Amino acid sequence: MPAATTTAPHPLDTFFSPSSIALIGASRDLEKIPGRLLSMLRKNHYPGRIYPINPNYGDIDGLKCYPSIADVGAPIDLAIVIIPARAVLGALEQCAAVGVKNAVIISSGFAEEGGDSAAMQDAIVALAKKTGMRISGPNAEGFYSEAQHVAATFSPTVDVKPGVVDLVATRRRAAIVAQSGGIGFAIKHRAKALGIAISYCVSAGNEADLGAGEFLEYMVQDSSTDVILLFIEGIRDVDKFLAAARRAAEIGKPIIVTKVGRSGAGERAAASHTASMAGWSAAYDAVFAKYGFIVSNDLDEAVAIAAVLTTSPLPKGDRVAVLTVSGGAGIWGADTVSMQGMQVPELPEAMQAEIRKLLPSYGAARNPIDVTAQGVHSGGLQKSIELLNASDDIDAILVVLSLFSDTRMLFKQAELKPVIDAQRKPIVFYSYTLPSNFARTTLAEAGVVVLSGLTHAGVALRRLVDYAKFALAPPADAVAPVTADIAAHLKVTKLSEHDSKSLLRAAGVALPDETLVADRSELDDAIARAGFPLVLKIQSRDIPHKSEVGGVRVNIATKGEAWAAFGALLDSARQHRPDADIQGVLVGPMAKKGVEIIVGTMLDATFGPMIMVGLGGITTELFKDVIYRPAPVSAAEASAMLGELKAAPLLNGFRGAPKADVQALSALISQISRLAAQFKDAISEIELNPVLVHGEGHGVTIVDALVVPKTN
Amino acid sequence: MPAATTTAPHPLDTFFSPSSIALIGASRDLEKIPGRLLSMLRKNHYPGRIYPINPNYGDIDGLKCYPSIADVGAPIDLAIVIIPARAVLGALEQCAAVGVKNAVIISSGFAEEGGDSAAMQDAIVALAKKTGMRISGPNAEGFYSEAQHVAATFSPTVDVKPGVVDLVATRRRAAIVAQSGGIGFAIKHRAKALGIAISYCVSAGNEADLGAGEFLEYMVQDSSTDVILLFIEGIRDVDKFLAAARRAAEIGKPIIVTKVGRSGAGERAAASHTASMAGWSAAYDAVFAKYGFIVSNDLDEAVAIAAVLTTSPLPKGDRVAVLTVSGGAGIWGADTVSMQGMQVPELPEAMQAEIRKLLPSYGAARNPIDVTAQGVHSGGLQKSIELLNASDDIDAILVVLSLFSDTRMLFKQAELKPVIDAQRKPIVFYSYTLPSNFARTTLAEAGVVVLSGLTHAGVALRRLVDYAKFALAPPADAVAPVTADIAAHLKVTKLSEHDSKSLLRAAGVALPDETLVADRSELDDAIARAGFPLVLKIQSRDIPHKSEVGGVRVNIATKGEAWAAFGALLDSARQHRPDADIQGVLVGPMAKKGVEIIVGTMLDATFGPMIMVGLGGITTELFKDVIYRPAPVSAAEASAMLGELKAAPLLNGFRGAPKADVQALSALISQISRLAAQFKDAISEIELNPVLVHGEGHGVTIVDALVVPKTN
Repeated sequence: MPAATTTAPHPLDTFFSPSSIALIGASRDLEKIPGRLLSMLRKNHYPGRIYPINPNYGDIDGLKCYPSIADVGAPIDLAIVIIPARAVLGALEQCAAVGVKNAVIISSGFAEEGGDSAAMQDAIVALAKKTGMRISGPNAEGFYSEAQHVAATFSPTVDVKPGVVDLVATRRRAAIVAQSGGIGFAIKHRAKALGIAISYCVSAGNEADLGAGEFLEYMVQDSSTDVILLFIEGIRDVDKFLAAARRAAEIGKPIIVTKVGRSGAGERAAASHTASMAGWSAAYDAVFAKYGFIVSNDLDEAVAIAAVLTTSPLPKGDRVAVLTVSGGAGIWGADTVSMQGMQVPELPEAMQAEIRKLLPSYGAARNPIDVTAQGVHSGGLQKSIELLNASDDIDAILVVLSLFSDTRMLFKQAELKPVIDAQRKPIVFYSYTLPSNFARTTLAEAGVVVLSGLTHAGVALRRLVDYAKFALAPPADAVAPVTADIAAHLKVTKLSEHDSKSLLRAAGVALPDETLVADRSELDDAIARAGFPLVLKIQSRDIPHKSEVGGVRVNIATKGEAWAAFGALLDSARQHRPDADIQGVLVGPMAKKGVEIIVGTMLDATFGPMIMVGLGGITTELFKDVIYRPAPVSAAEASAMLGELKAAPLLNGFRGAPKADVQALSALISQISRLAAQFKDAISEIELNPVLVHGEGHGVTIVDALVVPKTN
Repeated sequence: MPAATTTAPHPLDTFFSPSSIALIGASRDLEKIPGRLLSMLRKNHYPGRIYPINPNYGDIDGLKCYPSIADVGAPIDLAIVIIPARAVLGALEQCAAVGVKNAVIISSGFAEEGGDSAAMQDAIVALAKKTGMRISGPNAEGFYSEAQHVAATFSPTVDVKPGVVDLVATRRRAAIVAQSGGIGFAIKHRAKALGIAISYCVSAGNEADLGAGEFLEYMVQDSSTDVILLFIEGIRDVDKFLAAARRAAEIGKPIIVTKVGRSGAGERAAASHTASMAGWSAAYDAVFAKYGFIVSNDLDEAVAIAAVLTTSPLPKGDRVAVLTVSGGAGIWGADTVSMQGMQVPELPEAMQAEIRKLLPSYGAARNPIDVTAQGVHSGGLQKSIELLNASDDIDAILVVLSLFSDTRMLFKQAELKPVIDAQRKPIVFYSYTLPSNFARTTLAEAGVVVLSGLTHAGVALRRLVDYAKFALAPPADAVAPVTADIAAHLKVTKLSEHDSKSLLRAAGVALPDETLVADRSELDDAIARAGFPLVLKIQSRDIPHKSEVGGVRVNIATKGEAWAAFGALLDSARQHRPDADIQGVLVGPMAKKGVEIIVGTMLDATFGPMIMVGLGGITTELFKDVIYRPAPVSAAEASAMLGELKAAPLLNGFRGAPKADVQALSALISQISRLAAQFKDAISEIELNPVLVHGEGHGVTIVDALVVPKTN
């Protein structure tokens, strides 16, 4: 359940709930966007003052029209700017001069066109910084505040049709934050068609000043918003975004996010579109996972999730009852729930007996529960829901019906309402025929949204189950930062394994006791130190892939073999890479067996240092079984990452093998992540591959390591 | 493209296009199902003769009503039976006596209730067999023939509303075959809402006589049906189903299949629902894959695939152009296509230049192509589609628009129609706002179906790409069957590895040269025969899992070790399983290295022998990377199976490793599959695990094998 949100005044209140609006570029031509902006404001019954600004008119549609903003002579909370791009900066300067608090620039032709046009956008940013006037856009479609009746947008989806009553089925409200106005208002259009109440819908456009992160932050603190639908190509105001994400996680306000620009072609288009940077989507997904965002890449699926979140409390578990009037549809419902990894448990016998009383002989009460059409007629649906709602054996209810009739309901809506009012768990309605407007409207009165996609209904329930279990990981800052001077290790542009391990050792990372043998005379001492069996590896900053030059010898059992291997390694390296500068041969003990894991860090252009863990060996690459998180992570968060690996069973005593030392591995992941975060200006990548994870209590062994310095 | 289908007369023509219908149990009460059946027939303008049968009425709704079928005195093609279950058999006997050709039993209360009721269904089956009268149902919802105006169903979805004109956007027609009437008619309802023309919709119910397989067969041969939507819980008339599936593959008529009852709960419900047997869904999927069925587990997705198949030719490849009017939506479209594994290639520069001429400066022509609203207004959409349709660099076109307006189209429909008429490749329209009926109707005139789900549009394109590439595998019957007598090997209920390998050897399968050493005195000879390094394995029919009793020793390099291991193996087995009957120790050479594969066979209750192949070792279990097919398969089909493994790259020279001997492995799979098929009455399972696949030209080694006899 969303916790109470603050209702303290917010600087953007004057943006989203302006007492007065100046429309710069107002027009009488309703076919064009400037004219439509004024018309939408008025049709949606904007309650504040509207000041059209246009030197060519004395009045528009009964409103006095002003030659310039300076002529208004009254306080203005919001200026909507829809004039040619080259005139925008001047108009904004006039706005700032008379104390306009906020502006939204609808006009296009800025950063998305590059060159001079981009420079104009930079000037707008500078103006916002200098004056404190907050600016949204340019190249934005504006916003829509439903409760405040502010339609500051030309989107045709906010048009008001005479005689058409909004469908509202939910008590709670969803806000929509999107960079693309086209998509933002399409989400609103589809959400409203389902009966989801909306608080705000805002499109961020080019985000010269106000960005998606700051809008998100507003919706997180807004007490009229219970759920947030976020559509992004890439985040620019990263710090604000992360603060909003953390706050949402803390207060339990769900954010459903769609991130596009994930494919090569998508990124290519995103780069040109709103001058956005789509970025590396694995980093986005890592941030979403950290803060418990609900990720959806499908519009109807995202809206279905929002529908369930705005109508239902969160489930306590994943045991779903499927109620139906059609045997085939009930089976499909049970399959869908099961395929989402939830349970459809057979009901306890006592409850089956209770339900059987409500059904004809050919009904079914085991789960799925086939109420049958006859059972529905005699009130069996509502009563079954009531029983399931009261039961501690069931966490959610999926009702599968046919609701296509334009004139008749199978059951009495008035009998359903008190049942829904008393709901203690998600109750999701799905119609396998296309639901009619009549059914939607009738059921909306009972607070029911009818979903039209069964898979979406199943996914929505699954996301609720996961969201209910989500807990924000504790911060990873408990351990003191590394104080050792690692700069000395980073004076070269390329590090060998030996260099990398020296750096890691200096930073306090536990590594096997290995010796770099540069001269044959040191070999015996190194062997004695390591003990048999041995591993010998060539070391050179010029040879990143040792195996390719025959540079690794394992399982060496005698001194004779060791001496022979030493010579052979050097010969082989010189033969393959005559120009390589050879540091020597690293002599160390063979590692004990263990589960092969890869641990790595990298710098993301948007979110900075990231930590990665995956199953090592061939399968990592083949099955892409890796998990990322923003660095640093605590050991607890690292352990949660390991739990998300498909290969997690390998660490937990698979097929009778001993359990792996997950504690030691988690500690290592946390340590490496803190190192990457602390030295994000000096280190671009760390790769430990493989790390062998031994049995519980026996720790881990870093077999190979590579640190890549950051080159600027 | 679907090939020409036969138009020869078919025995079921009188069922689906009856010249006369008797309605047994006709009623004047339109609120109840019997009355509704008559009303639906007449409202849908059934052109043939209708004979209501009910001893209680002289006439119904202006039609003469007969006391019994014997009183009609005219030929009757179809009897629709809707009377209490206990009266059905008698009525059917009367029908048969007067030569009624077909009957559909709507009444419930037969096999789905078990006991006596099931026995009544058996009697119906016997009657059909004896008389040749074809019977559909009981417990069916009937059928609907759109072209022939036969609404032999009580489904409210066939109700005709005055003044409502059907939306028809497709030139080609889809047939719907479902066991569940509720779902079958829901598919029809959703398909018609999109504008897909329907040929037939039939629900099979309990399938006493006519089953889904036979209905499928009818639609495959029916010249008015171009695409088939199939919804099943489990197939009863397996031979007819398989014949229909093969024929559909041969003539290239696509079948989109939804199979439910895949989960435990779904199966539980399916068993009670239409007395169906859901069966093991991996076997169903194997059969679907063999015959190129398009599998979809989502209703809207299945209908979207049907929409694209009924409007578009098949694509020649997977290069998709995304056309849009919204930057954000275009990115989403490109992402969706890419996530389905298709390409969104940057257009050749010459084509970009052509397209740029149609767009304003802020449009984009690289792909995704942002035509912009202004570009659409000036005809850029149709012209871009025309260019892309003519191009050999693009295989399909995804058009992403906002089509929610009730009154306005962004472009001239009349200009679009000739472009669509000339289409050479799939052109799929998707609206990110909810498409309006106005838009659907207007675009239907151009032959365009508007899809409302982007993921579904992407999946549909992907399925078309796959379907276009599908080729029915050649039969596997080229090789002579095994003539050796393997019965001698199957006289025990459990086989050891040695027993299993002896059987396989007798059947002609190549295996390593191993010796079963029962007595210490034979060990030296066995060692000499195998050569070092050796592997020694305990053999007992009572020890299925050798490693669990310490029963395997590998990499034995000396005679001394071999002797020691021999003794230790026997000791360990006796210690762990004192009661086990020990056959001896199997002595053989260590296998050369290779990719670990598992090959197996099993008997499915519905489809009989199945062959399975998967990546061996730990990962098989963890990543469930296995592929099934009905046995037998040819080597070519086996090779195609290997290509479907996620781990396929491991066989094709992964990370610079040599390519594996896929040819030898495919030959082995084919051989084992033929063995399983030939001896399906004697062998229930074969498992070769692991099979090591060596480098190209070096064959495979079966390391361990188990054959499980069939016990009846």
